Amino acid sequence: GFARWITSSQYFGIDKVVILGNRCDIDEADAVDHLGSDPSCSVIGLYLEGVKDGRKFLKAVERAASRKPLLVLKSGRTPLGAEAATSHTGSLSGEDRIFDAALRRAGAIRVYDFDELFDLAKTFSYFADLPPAEDLRVGVVSVSGAGCVLSADAIGDYGLRLAGLGEDTIERILSVYPSGWIARNPIDMWSAIEEVGAFDAYLTITEAVLEDDGVDGASIIFMLIPDVTEMDIRRFLREIKPYRKPFTLCFMGGDMRLVHEWEQIAEGESIPVFHSPERAIRALGAILRWKHERRR
Amino acid sequence: GFARWITSSQYFGIDKVVILGNRCDIDEADAVDHLGSDPSCSVIGLYLEGVKDGRKFLKAVERAASRKPLLVLKSGRTPLGAEAATSHTGSLSGEDRIFDAALRRAGAIRVYDFDELFDLAKTFSYFADLPPAEDLRVGVVSVSGAGCVLSADAIGDYGLRLAGLGEDTIERILSVYPSGWIARNPIDMWSAIEEVGAFDAYLTITEAVLEDDGVDGASIIFMLIPDVTEMDIRRFLREIKPYRKPFTLCFMGGDMRLVHEWEQIAEGESIPVFHSPERAIRALGAILRWKHERRR
Repeated sequence: GFARWITSSQYFGIDKVVILGNRCDIDEADAVDHLGSDPSCSVIGLYLEGVKDGRKFLKAVERAASRKPLLVLKSGRTPLGAEAATSHTGSLSGEDRIFDAALRRAGAIRVYDFDELFDLAKTFSYFADLPPAEDLRVGVVSVSGAGCVLSADAIGDYGLRLAGLGEDTIERILSVYPSGWIARNPIDMWSAIEEVGAFDAYLTITEAVLEDDGVDGASIIFMLIPDVTEMDIRRFLREIKPYRKPFTLCFMGGDMRLVHEWEQIAEGESIPVFHSPERAIRALGAILRWKHERRR
Repeated sequence: GFARWITSSQYFGIDKVVILGNRCDIDEADAVDHLGSDPSCSVIGLYLEGVKDGRKFLKAVERAASRKPLLVLKSGRTPLGAEAATSHTGSLSGEDRIFDAALRRAGAIRVYDFDELFDLAKTFSYFADLPPAEDLRVGVVSVSGAGCVLSADAIGDYGLRLAGLGEDTIERILSVYPSGWIARNPIDMWSAIEEVGAFDAYLTITEAVLEDDGVDGASIIFMLIPDVTEMDIRRFLREIKPYRKPFTLCFMGGDMRLVHEWEQIAEGESIPVFHSPERAIRALGAILRWKHERRR
């Protein structure tokens, strides 16, 4: 049941689901080894309630994580959860802080719920092949001021940096605003949309941001309201897809049918879509950190 | 734009959206006063980047929060966010910890992103009229063991309690399991579904849990897989709706079309639906805490 849920609830491609349950002959370490050396698997996502042989498991994690991103959702973190895990799979969860430190040392990325597991899995699967990131500098392009402020808070929360914009970038951005405007990151684009329309505003600003050497990744926020939905989203995605930096789209509704339609179009192009500014920044931060740590 | 997003993205009824923007004559305090005394508004949700007159605002919050649940999403929490807020609405965010403490003293419920604001707003709007809660004891009924463990962790994280089940409750629950089973909370119902089918398993177990005096609220977790989707969800909801305790449904996909269909059916009956065990527990915990604090 669980396996069917996992394979059916996401747009991005899930290659294999290994459900071990109350495992006997094959344990988590064997599964990690197998997926780590399987070339058709680009990201490994694990849900664990405990591990059988900690040492063997951590060695397998270290091997696999040196090759591809490895995400771990480990439940039974709290005393209540640990007790529930014992009656579910007979797992002994052990001291969570010790497990956490060991996981990180082995190169795994710890996540804390299924939303985060799926958010990061799709972001890593779309962007794992991009070049390393120089730093953790994020550009934010948002149709609403609230999206700017919430994104800036999330950038603070996740220990990322708000990118400063180069002079050239600022000049290109200002070309779509009424005169007298000041461009700063996060970029509140409402006035640009009023000035030149949604398509030109989004494309000019997004390209300027993604081409800036001081920007490692970008979060692009849409509200699917009439002023925005008239734009040709397929053409926009075609134009920005070639940039070799991670970027995320955030669609805040609007007409929910259209939100799902745009989401399917974007994820069909391997561009990750979120519905809250915070989750977009969380996923972007995770891929930037991973790419930054692997830059040498 | 923002207002249209808010009114169009949720199933539950949104009565009024007040967008103040760069407010002049009317400020947040006036808006809170107005909504607090408006009988057609059952829950107040605020998104703020800062307040004009802190003292006046907190007095208005105190008045309104004594009458109905008042949720506050305040951005500009972090230094980066505060700077972005200044250029968006000219708000001075002030020291977040001081604001946070003052908000809580005034009886407001602080939330940290729009997902949480909407999750809690719908849960409070559906359940604000139910009787006070004696304690924070949560029952969990889940089709998957993972749902049990993740829920137990979330119960730990949010400072709630896992309900102990009465003898009578356990007896009723065991009636739908193969013999030799042990019933404990969180209740892993897979074997009951195999034994008597999804409808009888869900109904018997959910009713037993909701009727237990030691349970203040419940989280009921579904995976929309064939064994489950054959059940008559409308009839199930009709049977459990009359119980005067807060409960949430969590639908973990399955066929996404069916997930949305079931979600609309349930929220049409004023029963809140979530898609992750953690968000269900977070919302349930918030309503239980609010009802518990107001029990005298």
